[in-house]
Amino acid sequence: MAATSVIRRNISDLTNPAPHVDLETRATKGDHQALRLWLRLLSCTVRVENHVRRGLRQEFSTTLPRFDLMAQLERYPAGLRMSDLSKHLMVSGGNVTGITDQLESEGLVVRTFDRGDRRAITVKLTPAGLKRFRELAASHEHWVVELLGGLSQEDKQAMLTTLGKLKSHLNSVLPSAGSHKAMPAARKR
Amino acid sequence: MAATSVIRRNISDLTNPAPHVDLETRATKGDHQALRLWLRLLSCTVRVENHVRRGLRQEFSTTLPRFDLMAQLERYPAGLRMSDLSKHLMVSGGNVTGITDQLESEGLVVRTFDRGDRRAITVKLTPAGLKRFRELAASHEHWVVELLGGLSQEDKQAMLTTLGKLKSHLNSVLPSAGSHKAMPAARKR
Repeated sequence: MAATSVIRRNISDLTNPAPHVDLETRATKGDHQALRLWLRLLSCTVRVENHVRRGLRQEFSTTLPRFDLMAQLERYPAGLRMSDLSKHLMVSGGNVTGITDQLESEGLVVRTFDRGDRRAITVKLTPAGLKRFRELAASHEHWVVELLGGLSQEDKQAMLTTLGKLKSHLNSVLPSAGSHKAMPAARKR
Repeated sequence: MAATSVIRRNISDLTNPAPHVDLETRATKGDHQALRLWLRLLSCTVRVENHVRRGLRQEFSTTLPRFDLMAQLERYPAGLRMSDLSKHLMVSGGNVTGITDQLESEGLVVRTFDRGDRRAITVKLTPAGLKRFRELAASHEHWVVELLGGLSQEDKQAMLTTLGKLKSHLNSVLPSAGSHKAMPAARKR
C-alpha cells in the first residue's frame, strides 16, 4: 500500500484547522497523560483495524466479525455451543446467529445437536470453512506484520509486557470479558 | 465499578474451552509476535472503548460518535465545515449529517453559512453544547484515568513513545488518516 500522505502534526499545534488530523490530535497539552495515551492507543488501533476490515472486504468479500467467529471455531475443532461462541467474540457485528446462518449457507460452518443435551446446538467449521479460515488468517497475519513492522522486536516485547499489565488492571476493575459481550452491536462493521 | 471476575488465562492454554476468553486468547504459541501484540492491543482497546461507550450511554444517554464530533468542534471555536468535520472523525457511527442533525435539534450545535463561500456550511458548538461537552469530557477523562491506572507514569510514557513509532510507521504505509474516513460505518455503535 503506497504512502499517500505523511501526517506529522504536533499534538500541541491546535491553532491550525488542517483537515488531516486524527483522534489523538484532540488531546491538548494540559490533558492527563492517561488521556493522551488512550487517544494514541485508540487512534493506532482504529487505523490497523480499518486496514484489516478493508482487506477482508476487498480481498475476501468478508467482514471482521465473520473472521472473528471463524477464528474462534478454528480453536475448537469439536465445535462450540452457540452460547459460548457469542461469549468468545469481542469484535462483534450484530448477532452470532445471523453470522452463523450466513456461514452455514456458504458451507463454511455446520450446526449439530449436542449429544449430551439435545437442546444445545454446537457450531463447527466444515473442512471448507477451515480451508477458508486459513486463507483469511494468512492474509490477516501478513497485514498485521506489515503494519506493526515499524516496531523492533524489543519494542514489541516491551509493549506486550506493558499491555499485559494493562490487561490485568482491566480484569480487576471491569466486569469479565464475557459480560462485555452484552453489547453485541458495540463494534458493528 | 466492582471487580466481578478476574480472568488470568495463559494465552498458551488453548485446550480448555472456558467461556471467559478474549480476543487475544486466539493467538497460539506459534503465532508471530506482531500478531500477538495486535490481538493484545485490540483486546485492551475494545475493553476500554466498550467501557467508555457504556458510560456515555448510561450516564449521559449519548454515544461515542456524538462525543467524538463534539470533541472536534470544541477544538475549533470558530466552527468546522461539514466536509472537514467528517475527515476529523475516526470513531464514526454513521453519517456526520445525521449526528449533526440530532445535536442541532437538541441545541448543542448550530450550522451557519460560511461567509466566504455561501455554499459551505460550518458547524459549531453552542454555549450549551460547550457546557455539555465539558461535562462529558470530565467523565471521559475520569474513566480513562481509572482504566489506565494500572500503568505507572514510566509505563505510560514508554508506551506513548512506542505508539509514536507505530503511528509514524502507519503514516508511511497507510493512506492518510483523512482518507480512512471513507469507511463511515466501520465502527458503528
